[in-house]
Amino acid sequence: MRVVIIGSGAAGLTTASTIRKYNKDIEIVVITKEREIAYSPCAIPYVIEGTIKSFDDIVMHTPADYKKERNIDIITETAVVDVDSKNNKIKCIDKNGNEFGMDYDYLVLATGAEPFIPPIEGKDLKGVFKVRSIEDGRNILKYIEEEKCNKAVVVGAGAIGLEMAYGLKCRGLDVLVVEMAPQVLPRFLDPDMAERVQKYLEKEGIKIILSKPLEKIIGEEKVEAVCVGDQVYEADMVIMATGVRPNIELAKKAGCKIGKFAIEVNEKMQTSIPNIYAVGDCVEVVDFITGEKTLSPFGTTAVRQGKVAGKNIAGIDAKFYPVLNSAVSKIGELEIGGTGLTAFSANLKRIPIVIGRAKGLTRARYYPGGKEIEIKMIFSENGTVFGCQIVGGERVAERIDAMSIAIFKKVNAEEIANMEFCYAPPVSMVNEPLSLAAEDALKKLH
Amino acid sequence: MRVVIIGSGAAGLTTASTIRKYNKDIEIVVITKEREIAYSPCAIPYVIEGTIKSFDDIVMHTPADYKKERNIDIITETAVVDVDSKNNKIKCIDKNGNEFGMDYDYLVLATGAEPFIPPIEGKDLKGVFKVRSIEDGRNILKYIEEEKCNKAVVVGAGAIGLEMAYGLKCRGLDVLVVEMAPQVLPRFLDPDMAERVQKYLEKEGIKIILSKPLEKIIGEEKVEAVCVGDQVYEADMVIMATGVRPNIELAKKAGCKIGKFAIEVNEKMQTSIPNIYAVGDCVEVVDFITGEKTLSPFGTTAVRQGKVAGKNIAGIDAKFYPVLNSAVSKIGELEIGGTGLTAFSANLKRIPIVIGRAKGLTRARYYPGGKEIEIKMIFSENGTVFGCQIVGGERVAERIDAMSIAIFKKVNAEEIANMEFCYAPPVSMVNEPLSLAAEDALKKLH
Repeated sequence: MRVVIIGSGAAGLTTASTIRKYNKDIEIVVITKEREIAYSPCAIPYVIEGTIKSFDDIVMHTPADYKKERNIDIITETAVVDVDSKNNKIKCIDKNGNEFGMDYDYLVLATGAEPFIPPIEGKDLKGVFKVRSIEDGRNILKYIEEEKCNKAVVVGAGAIGLEMAYGLKCRGLDVLVVEMAPQVLPRFLDPDMAERVQKYLEKEGIKIILSKPLEKIIGEEKVEAVCVGDQVYEADMVIMATGVRPNIELAKKAGCKIGKFAIEVNEKMQTSIPNIYAVGDCVEVVDFITGEKTLSPFGTTAVRQGKVAGKNIAGIDAKFYPVLNSAVSKIGELEIGGTGLTAFSANLKRIPIVIGRAKGLTRARYYPGGKEIEIKMIFSENGTVFGCQIVGGERVAERIDAMSIAIFKKVNAEEIANMEFCYAPPVSMVNEPLSLAAEDALKKLH
Repeated sequence: MRVVIIGSGAAGLTTASTIRKYNKDIEIVVITKEREIAYSPCAIPYVIEGTIKSFDDIVMHTPADYKKERNIDIITETAVVDVDSKNNKIKCIDKNGNEFGMDYDYLVLATGAEPFIPPIEGKDLKGVFKVRSIEDGRNILKYIEEEKCNKAVVVGAGAIGLEMAYGLKCRGLDVLVVEMAPQVLPRFLDPDMAERVQKYLEKEGIKIILSKPLEKIIGEEKVEAVCVGDQVYEADMVIMATGVRPNIELAKKAGCKIGKFAIEVNEKMQTSIPNIYAVGDCVEVVDFITGEKTLSPFGTTAVRQGKVAGKNIAGIDAKFYPVLNSAVSKIGELEIGGTGLTAFSANLKRIPIVIGRAKGLTRARYYPGGKEIEIKMIFSENGTVFGCQIVGGERVAERIDAMSIAIFKKVNAEEIANMEFCYAPPVSMVNEPLSLAAEDALKKLH
């Protein structure tokens, strides 16, 4: 039996490794357009920043490692251009333009997502970059050095945009962030919490323009300036962090059902064609709170989906649960996390909510080095926790994880207020801010 | 109406503040033997260590603050010597020996616990200290300086014992820890996890003797040596960190029912006498897993109980839930946490369990500064999570909190394995160790 996996990101490689973990015999072939595999795209901004020394550091395995350690064949620099799902065959083209076919028993589409570049004037000039692959990262660094760049414009104030902005600032560039929405981190935080992040970045010297699109990029051959509203800003380079779109072309060619946003899959990560699975950024998932379809373009989602697909292909029953889109980012000294519903989306969807807030420190008040932490919690009108946003100096990620568990288990405000949080002066306050935020909501719920 | 609260620790003062939060009119009087109030006893080792500069730093409020900000009267350096619960009266003696009485409508016993000093030869010599009050802390530091101490013996390898041992080491003393149990942190961790803590402390130069009691303390007027087994070890001072015993004398005098270990209370923190409440280290509570009575001598428990008692006295219904005895400690570079059942107690109680283990890092493998983290998770034979122990370099406390929520909500191994943990390279791994530990248990559960 042969499983062919298209795509070597977290979803594809986790599927491959999971199949092998449970079955020694299945032939596993991964086909990827990329030259380098098994790196973490989330790490790109931290290499730009200089915290991680080199792009080589973020590559964790080579195709040879996969062959040797797990007997997984990885064919790099090769595009899959067609799927014939009736005859279980794919058509590929390698880097030299040679076409070849391959049969499969199971096919796994881990085709990921493509950066969305808005169709504006100047988008193809030299010095315009996306942030997706390790090659993008290498190209950005090379361009900064070769062109002696001083001014960068980052388009998009999502997590990757802001992480890149901070990274470029650390490299010594002047940075301008342009965001169409009226806040930074629009899909992640409510406006009030986002403001704290914005103020921090502005204090660090990053200029941020909100509520305005990038009109055009100006330049002869390479980027020289950008137009935002009526203003022209000099720029040596433009980073497009304008979101991603699922790659669903191959799924379409195969005849897989496409949903509202991306490839439709069931709980087993199976598409509408039983021997074709799909995992990662190219599929749509179910939102835990609303029950609606949504996207979940996160590394953790990719890994969890890869495990589910891999187990099912290996004959072990596994299910992928609805998502909270729990996420965390570290930008300079700030750690920012969110999970579940924001007040903003609740209002959009006319879901009645109650909000609880608290501020605190990450250590006892008198213990040196404690960082501020600010929490906003969203509850249903019955008091069930629906979401949580945290901005703080440290120890945010695990608090978000705790709240993700609470949301999944439909914990209520009273339970969180009375929850047994552990305490020691160097690592927490005796009054845990999560508990105080729930108590704040309780007052409004009674 | 007058509420009299006996004791100015976290439990007593939280009760007082909570009553005031919900009621402006009730007269609130706190009576305490101590001179200083509102300090964190958990911070004492960190002052000894030098991380917190002075004992003055850990005192957060004065009696005058309480009077001014919350209209709470605090009578210091005064002992309550009798309770006449038929006539709702107490008898007090102030620091000058003057006796006086006071009526109450409600009485709150927040009498705490007393360090247990084993009845061995030499226990009353100069240079033998307990670690309970801020005065103990000040006395220890003063003695080290005045007597130019070089060698300290810490008796008891619980959290306070080990924190003190590390603190004294940081002060430049040679430290020997003597523990009767065959492991360090016996009530907190299983032997295998405790071993990691022990090795760390030994690497830091602290000598540890297990499975042996302190036989006697030798000295003319002051400590000169200790006897452990057949060996004599020179010592300039001895720190008794040999646990605490609930102070229940006043409760007995009042006629409150005493349980297996301490004062019996209901969910409202009410004793068997309806207008007498009891909170903090002097009461016994219910263990969440076993349903048995237990002690919970932690600052967080005291605070949560104070809130419950305060609300009920102010006429607001509130309940104290059974406990997991979730705890965390930071000793040097190690953060150590535990919640719920250990494998050791499960075996004692003949509860069948399945264990899951994982090791990981606190950041992505390639991200600088990541610390090792080791997790042991205890599940019921049906897969429900019962307990979790973590030893790591950082970010342990909130993981313990996440697992406390999971235990309270009876989450199972499969749910933890598939849980949506957030990820960013500077703060987590894409494969969260909590999830890997649950997956490890799953293999044995299937």
